[in-house]
Amino acid sequence: MNIKSFLHKNTPKEIIVVQGLGFVGSVMSLVCANAINGDYAVIGVDVPTERGKKITDDLNNGIFPLVADDPKIDQLFKKSIEKGNFFATTETDAYKFADVIIVDINLDVKKENHTSGALLDYNVDLFLFKKAIKSIGENCKEDVLILVETTVPPGTCVEVVKPIIHNCLKERNLSLDKVKIAHSYERVMPGPGYIDSIQNFFRVYSGIDEKSADAVESFLHTIIRTDEYPLTRLGNTNATEMAKVLENSYRAMNIAFMVEWSRFAEEAKVNLYEVVDAIRLRPTHANLMYPGIGVGGYCLTKDALLASWARQNLIGKSDPLSQSEIAININDQMPRFAFEFLKKHYPNLEESKILLLGVSYRGDVGDTRFSPVEKLYNYLTEAGANISCHDPYVKYWGEQSLKIYENLSTHLNQSLDIIILSTGHSIYKEDKTVDMIYNIQPLLIFDTIGHLSNKQINRLKKKHTVKVLGRGDI
Amino acid sequence: MNIKSFLHKNTPKEIIVVQGLGFVGSVMSLVCANAINGDYAVIGVDVPTERGKKITDDLNNGIFPLVADDPKIDQLFKKSIEKGNFFATTETDAYKFADVIIVDINLDVKKENHTSGALLDYNVDLFLFKKAIKSIGENCKEDVLILVETTVPPGTCVEVVKPIIHNCLKERNLSLDKVKIAHSYERVMPGPGYIDSIQNFFRVYSGIDEKSADAVESFLHTIIRTDEYPLTRLGNTNATEMAKVLENSYRAMNIAFMVEWSRFAEEAKVNLYEVVDAIRLRPTHANLMYPGIGVGGYCLTKDALLASWARQNLIGKSDPLSQSEIAININDQMPRFAFEFLKKHYPNLEESKILLLGVSYRGDVGDTRFSPVEKLYNYLTEAGANISCHDPYVKYWGEQSLKIYENLSTHLNQSLDIIILSTGHSIYKEDKTVDMIYNIQPLLIFDTIGHLSNKQINRLKKKHTVKVLGRGDI
Repeated sequence: MNIKSFLHKNTPKEIIVVQGLGFVGSVMSLVCANAINGDYAVIGVDVPTERGKKITDDLNNGIFPLVADDPKIDQLFKKSIEKGNFFATTETDAYKFADVIIVDINLDVKKENHTSGALLDYNVDLFLFKKAIKSIGENCKEDVLILVETTVPPGTCVEVVKPIIHNCLKERNLSLDKVKIAHSYERVMPGPGYIDSIQNFFRVYSGIDEKSADAVESFLHTIIRTDEYPLTRLGNTNATEMAKVLENSYRAMNIAFMVEWSRFAEEAKVNLYEVVDAIRLRPTHANLMYPGIGVGGYCLTKDALLASWARQNLIGKSDPLSQSEIAININDQMPRFAFEFLKKHYPNLEESKILLLGVSYRGDVGDTRFSPVEKLYNYLTEAGANISCHDPYVKYWGEQSLKIYENLSTHLNQSLDIIILSTGHSIYKEDKTVDMIYNIQPLLIFDTIGHLSNKQINRLKKKHTVKVLGRGDI
Repeated sequence: MNIKSFLHKNTPKEIIVVQGLGFVGSVMSLVCANAINGDYAVIGVDVPTERGKKITDDLNNGIFPLVADDPKIDQLFKKSIEKGNFFATTETDAYKFADVIIVDINLDVKKENHTSGALLDYNVDLFLFKKAIKSIGENCKEDVLILVETTVPPGTCVEVVKPIIHNCLKERNLSLDKVKIAHSYERVMPGPGYIDSIQNFFRVYSGIDEKSADAVESFLHTIIRTDEYPLTRLGNTNATEMAKVLENSYRAMNIAFMVEWSRFAEEAKVNLYEVVDAIRLRPTHANLMYPGIGVGGYCLTKDALLASWARQNLIGKSDPLSQSEIAININDQMPRFAFEFLKKHYPNLEESKILLLGVSYRGDVGDTRFSPVEKLYNYLTEAGANISCHDPYVKYWGEQSLKIYENLSTHLNQSLDIIILSTGHSIYKEDKTVDMIYNIQPLLIFDTIGHLSNKQINRLKKKHTVKVLGRGDI
């Protein structure tokens, strides 16, 4: 199969090209190929690197590139195979045929952190993003709808995407009046509700002009259940770009708030979990977070910086967003604090045998991108500890090139000095897991995320030493 | 009437002394004198200054010191007069007879701000607080329950109150084993639900030991509807002290977040109100604030600093709480930003005629303490503007020694250049008010708090110039 034969087979369907087949693009492709109110031919495009080639080959051979526990992914993937309306490629030729191009590539922030985790410096490099947009401009039809879903610094659609596309069209002697450029951000949440986080969730959108906004609105109606989750149109692309990074800055800041207070609580011998529960009774404070080991994942570790960078460099050309920067700075230091906390209770970590329960950044999800556990793992390694890792959702920890063995009892039956609860997977708070831990030889249990209940802590304390971060003296 | 005769008349009731008759203590006295499950004799004590004497005299003569639009205040005050179980005095003798002493005095933060509003330095001076506690220790019974309600730096009950009381008792050759010291913070909200914010709201409490916690628990059951609003006991007084300042730091930070982003939104020509509405659809983000002119009132302008000060000086002796300090710093600068915003649209303010709609810090409340409008007023005055002020809830603006005239049409019928919406009183968004404004000569309307609806803005724009802070280009 090649692009031509795929298109021939799918004539006269409208053609959607998804640029970037990562955590968002691959799933977005499935949602488009199984549109609720449309019948599209979908081509997924990734870069012609070894990794990109493997992803596209796998997809064309019926292997989905992500392991996720949302059964809908499998269902939609199978349906698209049956219908034959989804094809993956690394060839930019695909853009030539597209009626809609959805930009789902990454836009990373380069961070420079001190050993303590403190944020020393950061930078946003638009080089790859610009290159990707240029490859669209050099190939696209003059009346294409380009929908940017990538989380970008506010200002990007108007200051970066539009000029690149217009320049390319001009060089190709095409009209500038017909192209539509829009922005609508996804709120994709890897995990059991992966597909629903696209199909069944609120969307905010905008366009660089009215016809762009109208075009993306019509398109979104075909793939999202907008009857239940109405769309919101904002006044300009700056606004939707800002909304996305504002959302994530807000969340990162609220996490950082608790991270900072959990240190204070430790110093004051205060059980911060109790305090949070007491405060949450107030409706205005119901979404106060609990303390924890910090923040991970692709978005919350960087979006606040995208915002602050944009304010300084793209639009505004003004001051940094101080709270957003400080939030990242605090969160990045939390794994170090967890490590120091452990060292206080177990000073000689050299040759100690440690079991990490969970390596992904979020409970019941296998996503290890920018997991705070990675930093903790590195600190422990540097201290000379022997670490084994368990995670029911991760078979191979890419960031550490580590194969993860699934059998928890094998992990527990080795000789151990310390068990660290590092990710909030449900299985770790099941009583049968706590029983298994109870029954091994006495050791130090370190709950970095307040995962255990008071009852479980009290039971474990009869035999083991239990320390919970953010609980003061308990 | 003096203390002796008051007590004689009220024998054998339990005696409650409330120390401090300000915004909390005066109302708390009423709640105690009208206890749901108890029959108390209540003595309110204030300092023997001119102001303190006026308050206590007024109270004994049937004049309540606060103007508030909660009808329950009047009702409870009348009832206590009928029952004859409430007496006010400036004599510390009162403490001698108390079974319960409730500490409701102020504990202020001294801030040093730059002309821009930026927070340069701050300090917490415990001198007056210690003096007040000492006056209790020098007089109280050895088995008294001392309930601290004042918002204090975490650590205060254990590090400050307990040593002072114990020292005093020791000097008086009394037992140290019987005194009970507890902390439980009020969540008093001046306004129409003033009494309910004490009687019908959740309470968090703790004691320096178990008997203190038990004692305050029993007491709180007699004055609060704990069947509907259950009490929460925390592990130690540090925890409840921390809970209070954490609550208010959290809120100050969330306000500051929007304040900072509203500047960014202005630069990016983004309507931040639209953005917030779009994000609030997410349950996790439902309490995102709207932008505004900053923060006012007694608590949110200082509590985050009490916390950070305590972490550095009282317990922990550690780093500042960076987010909490930055929140105050940002909020304190907002009135200046509002002023600069106005100057951009109306450069020559000298001799301009300005009407400020609202001077209190909060909608539908007459509390002017640390109102951000005060700073705006000062900047406008310095710029040479002629300002008149309207506020239906404030008859006399103490901070500016200004009598406020109530008649809005008189205010509007003078010659005006600018109307500034500065406080979110409901009356200002009634259509009849907007009609009155519409009908005067064309002028600049500056909505600093996003109080007007889109419809109202569009109507007013037909004749006037309308600028709303945080709405970008609109």
